[in-house]
Amino acid sequence: MKKVWSERIKVPSTKEVEDFTSSIRIDKRLYKHDIIGSIAHTKMLGKTNIISSEESREITEGLKQIYREIKEGELQPSKELEDIHMNIEARLIEKIGKVGEKLPTARSRNDQIALDERLWLREEIAILSNLLVNLQEALIEKAKKNIHLIMPGFTHSQHAEPVLFSHWLLAHFYKIQRDFDRLQDCFKRVNISPLGCVALAGSSLPIDRKLTSALLGFEKPCENSMDGVSDRDFLVESICCASLIMLHLSQLSEELIEWSTPEFGFIEIGDKFTTGSSLMPQKRNPDVAELIRGKTAITYGSLVGGLTLMKGLPLTYNKDLQEDKSLLFQALDQTRECLSILPEMIDSIKAKGERMKEAAADGFCGATELANYLVTKGVPFREAHGCVSKLVARLIDQGRDLSQIKIEELKQLSPKIQIDIKEVKGILSIENLVKTKSSYGGSSPFRVEESIGEVKQRVRDNREITEGKIESFKKLEEEIKDTQ
Amino acid sequence: MKKVWSERIKVPSTKEVEDFTSSIRIDKRLYKHDIIGSIAHTKMLGKTNIISSEESREITEGLKQIYREIKEGELQPSKELEDIHMNIEARLIEKIGKVGEKLPTARSRNDQIALDERLWLREEIAILSNLLVNLQEALIEKAKKNIHLIMPGFTHSQHAEPVLFSHWLLAHFYKIQRDFDRLQDCFKRVNISPLGCVALAGSSLPIDRKLTSALLGFEKPCENSMDGVSDRDFLVESICCASLIMLHLSQLSEELIEWSTPEFGFIEIGDKFTTGSSLMPQKRNPDVAELIRGKTAITYGSLVGGLTLMKGLPLTYNKDLQEDKSLLFQALDQTRECLSILPEMIDSIKAKGERMKEAAADGFCGATELANYLVTKGVPFREAHGCVSKLVARLIDQGRDLSQIKIEELKQLSPKIQIDIKEVKGILSIENLVKTKSSYGGSSPFRVEESIGEVKQRVRDNREITEGKIESFKKLEEEIKDTQ
Amino acid sequence: MKKVWSERIKVPSTKEVEDFTSSIRIDKRLYKHDIIGSIAHTKMLGKTNIISSEESREITEGLKQIYREIKEGELQPSKELEDIHMNIEARLIEKIGKVGEKLPTARSRNDQIALDERLWLREEIAILSNLLVNLQEALIEKAKKNIHLIMPGFTHSQHAEPVLFSHWLLAHFYKIQRDFDRLQDCFKRVNISPLGCVALAGSSLPIDRKLTSALLGFEKPCENSMDGVSDRDFLVESICCASLIMLHLSQLSEELIEWSTPEFGFIEIGDKFTTGSSLMPQKRNPDVAELIRGKTAITYGSLVGGLTLMKGLPLTYNKDLQEDKSLLFQALDQTRECLSILPEMIDSIKAKGERMKEAAADGFCGATELANYLVTKGVPFREAHGCVSKLVARLIDQGRDLSQIKIEELKQLSPKIQIDIKEVKGILSIENLVKTKSSYGGSSPFRVEESIGEVKQRVRDNREITEGKIESFKKLEEEIKDTQ
Amino acid sequence: MKKVWSERIKVPSTKEVEDFTSSIRIDKRLYKHDIIGSIAHTKMLGKTNIISSEESREITEGLKQIYREIKEGELQPSKELEDIHMNIEARLIEKIGKVGEKLPTARSRNDQIALDERLWLREEIAILSNLLVNLQEALIEKAKKNIHLIMPGFTHSQHAEPVLFSHWLLAHFYKIQRDFDRLQDCFKRVNISPLGCVALAGSSLPIDRKLTSALLGFEKPCENSMDGVSDRDFLVESICCASLIMLHLSQLSEELIEWSTPEFGFIEIGDKFTTGSSLMPQKRNPDVAELIRGKTAITYGSLVGGLTLMKGLPLTYNKDLQEDKSLLFQALDQTRECLSILPEMIDSIKAKGERMKEAAADGFCGATELANYLVTKGVPFREAHGCVSKLVARLIDQGRDLSQIKIEELKQLSPKIQIDIKEVKGILSIENLVKTKSSYGGSSPFRVEESIGEVKQRVRDNREITEGKIESFKKLEEEIKDTQ
Repeated sequence: MKKVWSERIKVPSTKEVEDFTSSIRIDKRLYKHDIIGSIAHTKMLGKTNIISSEESREITEGLKQIYREIKEGELQPSKELEDIHMNIEARLIEKIGKVGEKLPTARSRNDQIALDERLWLREEIAILSNLLVNLQEALIEKAKKNIHLIMPGFTHSQHAEPVLFSHWLLAHFYKIQRDFDRLQDCFKRVNISPLGCVALAGSSLPIDRKLTSALLGFEKPCENSMDGVSDRDFLVESICCASLIMLHLSQLSEELIEWSTPEFGFIEIGDKFTTGSSLMPQKRNPDVAELIRGKTAITYGSLVGGLTLMKGLPLTYNKDLQEDKSLLFQALDQTRECLSILPEMIDSIKAKGERMKEAAADGFCGATELANYLVTKGVPFREAHGCVSKLVARLIDQGRDLSQIKIEELKQLSPKIQIDIKEVKGILSIENLVKTKSSYGGSSPFRVEESIGEVKQRVRDNREITEGKIESFKKLEEEIKDTQ
Repeated sequence: MKKVWSERIKVPSTKEVEDFTSSIRIDKRLYKHDIIGSIAHTKMLGKTNIISSEESREITEGLKQIYREIKEGELQPSKELEDIHMNIEARLIEKIGKVGEKLPTARSRNDQIALDERLWLREEIAILSNLLVNLQEALIEKAKKNIHLIMPGFTHSQHAEPVLFSHWLLAHFYKIQRDFDRLQDCFKRVNISPLGCVALAGSSLPIDRKLTSALLGFEKPCENSMDGVSDRDFLVESICCASLIMLHLSQLSEELIEWSTPEFGFIEIGDKFTTGSSLMPQKRNPDVAELIRGKTAITYGSLVGGLTLMKGLPLTYNKDLQEDKSLLFQALDQTRECLSILPEMIDSIKAKGERMKEAAADGFCGATELANYLVTKGVPFREAHGCVSKLVARLIDQGRDLSQIKIEELKQLSPKIQIDIKEVKGILSIENLVKTKSSYGGSSPFRVEESIGEVKQRVRDNREITEGKIESFKKLEEEIKDTQ
Repeated sequence: MKKVWSERIKVPSTKEVEDFTSSIRIDKRLYKHDIIGSIAHTKMLGKTNIISSEESREITEGLKQIYREIKEGELQPSKELEDIHMNIEARLIEKIGKVGEKLPTARSRNDQIALDERLWLREEIAILSNLLVNLQEALIEKAKKNIHLIMPGFTHSQHAEPVLFSHWLLAHFYKIQRDFDRLQDCFKRVNISPLGCVALAGSSLPIDRKLTSALLGFEKPCENSMDGVSDRDFLVESICCASLIMLHLSQLSEELIEWSTPEFGFIEIGDKFTTGSSLMPQKRNPDVAELIRGKTAITYGSLVGGLTLMKGLPLTYNKDLQEDKSLLFQALDQTRECLSILPEMIDSIKAKGERMKEAAADGFCGATELANYLVTKGVPFREAHGCVSKLVARLIDQGRDLSQIKIEELKQLSPKIQIDIKEVKGILSIENLVKTKSSYGGSSPFRVEESIGEVKQRVRDNREITEGKIESFKKLEEEIKDTQ
Repeated sequence: MKKVWSERIKVPSTKEVEDFTSSIRIDKRLYKHDIIGSIAHTKMLGKTNIISSEESREITEGLKQIYREIKEGELQPSKELEDIHMNIEARLIEKIGKVGEKLPTARSRNDQIALDERLWLREEIAILSNLLVNLQEALIEKAKKNIHLIMPGFTHSQHAEPVLFSHWLLAHFYKIQRDFDRLQDCFKRVNISPLGCVALAGSSLPIDRKLTSALLGFEKPCENSMDGVSDRDFLVESICCASLIMLHLSQLSEELIEWSTPEFGFIEIGDKFTTGSSLMPQKRNPDVAELIRGKTAITYGSLVGGLTLMKGLPLTYNKDLQEDKSLLFQALDQTRECLSILPEMIDSIKAKGERMKEAAADGFCGATELANYLVTKGVPFREAHGCVSKLVARLIDQGRDLSQIKIEELKQLSPKIQIDIKEVKGILSIENLVKTKSSYGGSSPFRVEESIGEVKQRVRDNREITEGKIESFKKLEEEIKDTQ
């Protein structure tokens, strides 16, 4: 029926069906977590006398050695053994014999893979969190070094009001802070142990799920076994978090790319992060920023993949779930790569203050403040707005701008009030226009300095949160390295 | 150049461009929140002497009356006035004259719309949360009434082990609990005040952002004005939460639909939630469950919309953001509708216990437990597994099943150990197979009863959280109804 | 169990379940198509003697009157009657009595809704196609008027080589051409009649599906009844087409927005399509372009919705499909709105040729051509590239550019070859740099003029295709207006 | 600033930035297409005397050898050389010296990568098309072997009317036919040559784009150089096509999974495509079908990725585009894998005819036909419907069904007409209920047989289309293997 049309079209052999269903290519990277989980399970089996303490010790040692073997490339997982769990189990029996057959007691691959994913993911969340803090530090440093640079603030990609470049940098800081907070919230739902849910219904053996949960540093075991093996919320939620991170990085990248055009010329990204052209050496392609913007697409796609995968799936475990890992890894790897490279790139940016300021200082950027000045003199907002508006229109007609305004013109603005021309000139200076935005959270130097103090404290708090997590995960890793 | 090919193809008139850019069709539903926000702003302007307290009072009263006018349909927002903000402002000036022109002092539509969305959304989150608790209650009630019903537990849509129907119901409870928790986490990031960020840079007037934040019951004002007007994380994150809710509802719906087929016949959904056919009265189309499954698609689509909208947008406000509301409303409205109808539908389900149990009791469902029995006698897991496997294969060849097993056959399983045939028969009864899954979180009646106690407490805690929120929002609403 | 927490949280009444399942709010806009389909069905029932020709006539007349009633607002579809089909049927019986009960003979709502959607969609495709041609015409007109304007061509948002503005406009023309072609391909799969598939299996009555197909101007009836009622490919594919259209419009909008910044200043979009600020009259917010870019998100979201909806749905009709219409309408309405407004906006653009040219003429934009010049003299490409590269680096060090190059410097480039300084100067003029790109499809004026001839022919061909379709649909519409 | 928190968090070295921007890991699989393209380009350079014919020959030979080296694993592309283009060029110069530097004459990586992608994709489309035909053949074969099996036809996952299993198989045939047609339409837009667009503006050298287009078997060169290097429609459209294929496969898989449950028991999927459990040997997990359903998620995700990537990108080439390949490969690889395995799986299915028929024959499945019978006697449809409805309700009350109906009861149905009890009994037999659906496209055996003839012809036509394409691509491949 099916002729061979090309090397890529064939009737599938049994081996090819095996390849199709095998997940080892994707899940082999979970070997460390699989072994950490198995050791905790084994210890529990010993403590509860389901197996003897000697058996528990033997299995544990065997697993530690297998960890070393895989880590050092001595043991190559094989496709025939389908997944990482079966590869490790088979090697264990090969090494320590029949006692190795006791490892899967009161466990199924259904709870095991859910466990491995959670162990991997909570580590990854801590790493991503830490990278977010690196980025925050880079933003703060850049802000501190350029605290008084003035640039145009944009709405609709048009100049709205002058702002501080440092204020803009801190705007991105706060976006990243939410990403950090979201990841910690997500972590709470990741850090729950499914171990002991077994296939779907729990076990009839006297296992101690709270013990394995504690050994592995989880907050608690999950409360329902059918939920435990079917739940992939943690995975979808973490890709949501990654998507929001990438959303923010794409926005930041967009601005960096735009500001690097010859037309803007606001910044220069460091050589390391751009590629030029030998023929057109003035060209500085912002490759890294473009790639980050592009990689956003991969992460968004993974999120849609995760949501699609789970939609309408009946409980409990279904083979569809095997695809979850490629989505998870893809989304989080891309995010990690981008976050790894970005802080240094921020650091490399040279802000061209003169150019920014010149752009900011177009001749009517003080119009809002002139109106506000009238408001402080008692003119209702819309009326003040109206007066200034008429004045501006006239100036434009005459080819002049606000810096060339005369006292008489000002006086006509609102005959009822006293206007001090000096005061007005002061108000209309670009430095003042920035300084004056002194409401809480505003762009005035005073507020930005205040803000820098605040964000430094945030960074310290954030570090403390992530360091605690990373330390505890490292300890688990140390334990399995400690062979006799 | 452009001929008129049909009524739907025309050169756009100025009016049509207005229609294209007007958002009133979508944002008019924010009128209550817009007025609540404006009143707090006005009070602050008065307190800080930016306007007089008399002016503040007049504006406040005017706004309260406008709230009543819109609520009662007396005032119809118009397209010409573009959005809800301008509609209300125009009406205010019409009503109270020139003093109304002071309302927009130190405010811009950029911070105003961000404020309105947050006011609306935090209310919506409280409502959705409450609806989730309703669903949890319905699941618990159904579980309590059917606590001992046995059904097949599925993996790969195949029978795996018998479980309690109530255990399955509680599996869904815990999924919903995570949805609830996620919404509360999201709420923290919604409940922040952007008011006073003005266009993008803050204000030069002595506004008090902490005061407006407090008046509106926010946790705090946002820390950076450029972030404040450009941030739509809260919107995307809330649609993420809604997408996960819908994911869970789609899974539940899928199972209800499948279990309602004549082939399964596990449940009967109440008349109110199915449609029949007069000609085929035995037909009970699970329309509501199908629609819920289908509406998942709308919510997922909105999430992709939200992410796409924000990707690569430079700071700060861009007109693109106008589209955010239709995405938000669409996603959350669908979710709310589904959650409103589902608890009652759960309540209406008639579980057909006999049919479920019969399905669960296929002749080999005790194989795992037989192997576990051998494990308790000291046989290594994989060996026990192997013995039972051979036995089962033989029985199938002979057209028999485990209930027909003979003592001699059992004895051959593992000659080294003592086997008690009575004990084995007891083990293999379907009631025992369920009872025996007594590990924490398992499907045994004991564990499910324990779980029911636990989930009831959760419901009480959840209610307390949402009631507090709803009360405070109601108070804000009461205030604006209280005209003199 | 469920307390009333707010007006938005209630136990659903039977009426509310009705509301939940009713689709009339969405599908009422299909009334014309529903009636056109019903009339064709009725005529066929008459021709095949399933009903008498008198009955056929009566029903037809009744339907025509109902069309008029709905069109003129006399008949308001009601929610109780669930959908547009039942509303029309009920009104028909009300009007013409018992004979009206014969309308649903050999038809089900399953084939009826699939028919209505296809009738609507093929019309919509013709309209969208026509709007695409309008846009093409606007692009051509703008290109013709600005054929010799030179602007910088960008790669990586950096200047690469100077190009003609008209060449850029035609680049967008060709993107739109593919959109046009894709829609025509999609049309082939839309223009198939599902009528007569009935519920899912076809009919036992002697219906003539080829007759109804022909009466309705379809290419043919679909070949398999179960496919006919379950197929929504046409819907997803059409949203794919719309998504690619919006992708292109978002790219065009992005460039228009960027080029409208003060920094670029390449273009000015007409007043009608921008909003200013009375206080900052120099500000021209490109609102319409921003909205188009934003609306891309809605269409993408609808596509994901459509794909999610259909994923894993078993045959044949499922209630989930009811949600398909809101996705379809949303996606195509947004696309239509954007396409309706865009041609005029393109027309309104004022290209600032001086500014563009000045930007294009940075001092090294001739480097590639200088290298190519050496290639024509026999220097291998990479070597020529290397020589010029060194020269350029030296000039930059000296603060000079290519226009200031001296004859001796040129001679050093490659001692083996003869270099004519005049020739080189000519090559390096910006006009020449553009003129020289004379390969097929290139940016030279000659090629662009050639291209304009070609695209005009395309437009004529495109118009012919769409006009034919629109004429035939109008004829169907005329027929149902023609009451006795 | 950035401490090393773990091996995964580091300040990026220059090498790491290189890794971040390098695409060789992804694009190395394009080596064949890159070389085919380069040879055509080289031949053209020779023919147009841009290089000498001897140089052209040397480069061509060098490239052919490099093809062999990579194919046989002798040459490993390196990361330092960034992408496949630079790897091949560097190796060429290494092999044949300075003349190799002439390869990039009048070409840029911008047109080169677009070319390579199109060369790869058009081949892939031909392969996917062929696999679709394989699947069609499997469906036809299965239908032919089971042509008279009766099963319940479902709407809303409820029994609607009995249909032929073969009719259901052909419903899926037609879905696949649309997928085939869509791919051919997409092919037209893929099969266009971008070669000669160079960086973005075309070339000043006298290249012959029509020649390279013809040498490579393209339909024509693209008409606009800026469009040519920025266009990725072909990529997004092909992922759209793949998404619709996967949509269809997910629906088919869903049904196969459901029908394999013990409750349905309609089919048995072959051993090779299921996994059992040694302990529960009756269990046949439909792993392959579940994976196919799951992989749908990956393809959908890639589509969203592609759309997101391109949204709002300004012309022409941007580094973001580098990410397009991982999306394309991922989507099409998954689709190809699924299509490769599915035909054999279909072939392996054992339909359980007895079980299907028994399920189909529930006691009221003839109600529609009974009503139709009355219609043929002149009773209006809705009235006939009403009579039968009342009868059925009465029977249900009495615990009877239609097979037990008595002559008197029938007579009461509609006193005005003659009813022949024998005729009615014949009508109500399940065989007749299927046979009677004889309208075009209906489920009667006659129509299905007719359909099988028609689909066989389709398969022949489809094969002809794909074979022609594959032959021509093979020829190109043969040429580059033919070294001297």
